[in-house]
Amino acid sequence: MATRLSTQTDYENLLDKYDTWLFDCDGVLWEGDRLVEGAIEVLQILRHHKKSVMFVTNNATKSRKSYKTKFDKLGVEAHVDEIYGSAFAAAVYISSVMKMPKDKKVYVIGMSGIEEELQEEGISFIGGTDPIDNTLQPFSLAGWTPDPSVGAVLVGLDTSINYTKLSKAFNYLLRDSEVAFLATNEDSTYPTAEGLLPGAGSVGAPLRYSLGRDPISIGKPAGTMLDCIKAKHDFDPKRTIMVGDRLNTDIQFGKNGGLSTLLVLTGITKESEITGPNASPVVPDYVTKSIGDLRVLKNLSTSS
Amino acid sequence: MATRLSTQTDYENLLDKYDTWLFDCDGVLWEGDRLVEGAIEVLQILRHHKKSVMFVTNNATKSRKSYKTKFDKLGVEAHVDEIYGSAFAAAVYISSVMKMPKDKKVYVIGMSGIEEELQEEGISFIGGTDPIDNTLQPFSLAGWTPDPSVGAVLVGLDTSINYTKLSKAFNYLLRDSEVAFLATNEDSTYPTAEGLLPGAGSVGAPLRYSLGRDPISIGKPAGTMLDCIKAKHDFDPKRTIMVGDRLNTDIQFGKNGGLSTLLVLTGITKESEITGPNASPVVPDYVTKSIGDLRVLKNLSTSS
Repeated sequence: MATRLSTQTDYENLLDKYDTWLFDCDGVLWEGDRLVEGAIEVLQILRHHKKSVMFVTNNATKSRKSYKTKFDKLGVEAHVDEIYGSAFAAAVYISSVMKMPKDKKVYVIGMSGIEEELQEEGISFIGGTDPIDNTLQPFSLAGWTPDPSVGAVLVGLDTSINYTKLSKAFNYLLRDSEVAFLATNEDSTYPTAEGLLPGAGSVGAPLRYSLGRDPISIGKPAGTMLDCIKAKHDFDPKRTIMVGDRLNTDIQFGKNGGLSTLLVLTGITKESEITGPNASPVVPDYVTKSIGDLRVLKNLSTSS
Repeated sequence: MATRLSTQTDYENLLDKYDTWLFDCDGVLWEGDRLVEGAIEVLQILRHHKKSVMFVTNNATKSRKSYKTKFDKLGVEAHVDEIYGSAFAAAVYISSVMKMPKDKKVYVIGMSGIEEELQEEGISFIGGTDPIDNTLQPFSLAGWTPDPSVGAVLVGLDTSINYTKLSKAFNYLLRDSEVAFLATNEDSTYPTAEGLLPGAGSVGAPLRYSLGRDPISIGKPAGTMLDCIKAKHDFDPKRTIMVGDRLNTDIQFGKNGGLSTLLVLTGITKESEITGPNASPVVPDYVTKSIGDLRVLKNLSTSS
């Protein structure tokens, strides 16, 4: 059963036990463009106590660099090398794990975040934000010449999803079983300040359904994201905690990686999903209402 | 096991046994805009022998009236009251089975075929081909006022599928569990003359995935289509045969309705799916390569 954090001592013990704090962002630090109350202060407290702070997000619409500007805009201290996005992890996966030859290309369903991270890794791509593919004009195979150098299809959240991109991606995957089917992440929904919208998993769902097969998913809860972090930062899983708002991504991700987990209730997961007979089988180590609750640690001296 | 039709007598027996012949169209009579060789002749032979001929299609991009023009263009004799499309069946379902109140509206993901059939049944709708919803501009819930009179979301093949329509449909269904979730059909793919494209089921897949629930599907293999036909035509299921190219839609539809079934191999189903250890559990009564094979009945006298 999850431990409910409530007393000053509960939070102090938590601070003592973990050196590395991994944070999901949407639903934990903010919702859309609205900061969760106290989030900035809590991150400052952790840094003041010399904790390693990292941001692990499935959001692939932004590259790490442009995600950094979101932190800046909201006044949250963050450094590019503390930010791990699923677009970045996907690019690293394609170059380092798949070792896709340099003369091959990725067909992208996704936004500039994916394109920037692929570029950064020196991976060629087509599709994505290319105006040719961003149209609501009818798509016909008759007017299309597939690019024989496509070696992978990578799907992420794409708010310009259309039939042309779905049809091309479908045909690349259908015609050549060697073409890898990758997804930045499979979140079913995408939280905005005004409510939920379909997530990256939903944007890729037409391909799953038409092909009858699942993509290799890179983001949380898959281990690929953690492998990416491990490659850059040395940390002890036993002294690392993953803070998130989603049981099936964040908390499962922490569990898969042997980390401790803290669930906050400012995002997707509701109280009813963690208590009672219909509670999820994914049980976090700790639960607190909001990351802001950790503000009780404010006046703690660093030597405690 | 399915009976392979091959001799003149096989085809003559088939002709004798069935008075009502239900045809799927795409993959049986034509592929895209290319007629299957001999299809016109075979339909003429059946009509000559006083058989009832009906066309039962999951294609919801066209209304019955505009589907009729497709028959005309290809030179295939057909009458509007012989054509049963899933858009028509969906409209009938909404008005006659759901009995949706007249002051309620349908939010449509789909093309003009659905709109025309809803109009014909006197059902109000929004979405669909409305230019406001057919945009690749970013969608935000902040700029949207949901229409409180929406009582159902109906999804069909929509080659102008976009994030705005998916987001609105998702939110109608998410916010009010009384809003019905309907699909014209759930075909995973859509056959064109040049190859496969994602089908209606794939267009609706983001909603399934984001909501975690399935729509009520109207088209084949669901019984709703057959109920529609029964309401207009009197026929004896024992003397009725369904001719189709898809095991999981056409053939399953015939079986669900207690009809006999004939599989043709000019469309989706390949020989490997009906023979050998990996054969589908859906077994048609008869198999023939192409509907054109029935041309052997050409010189048969009507009294035979």
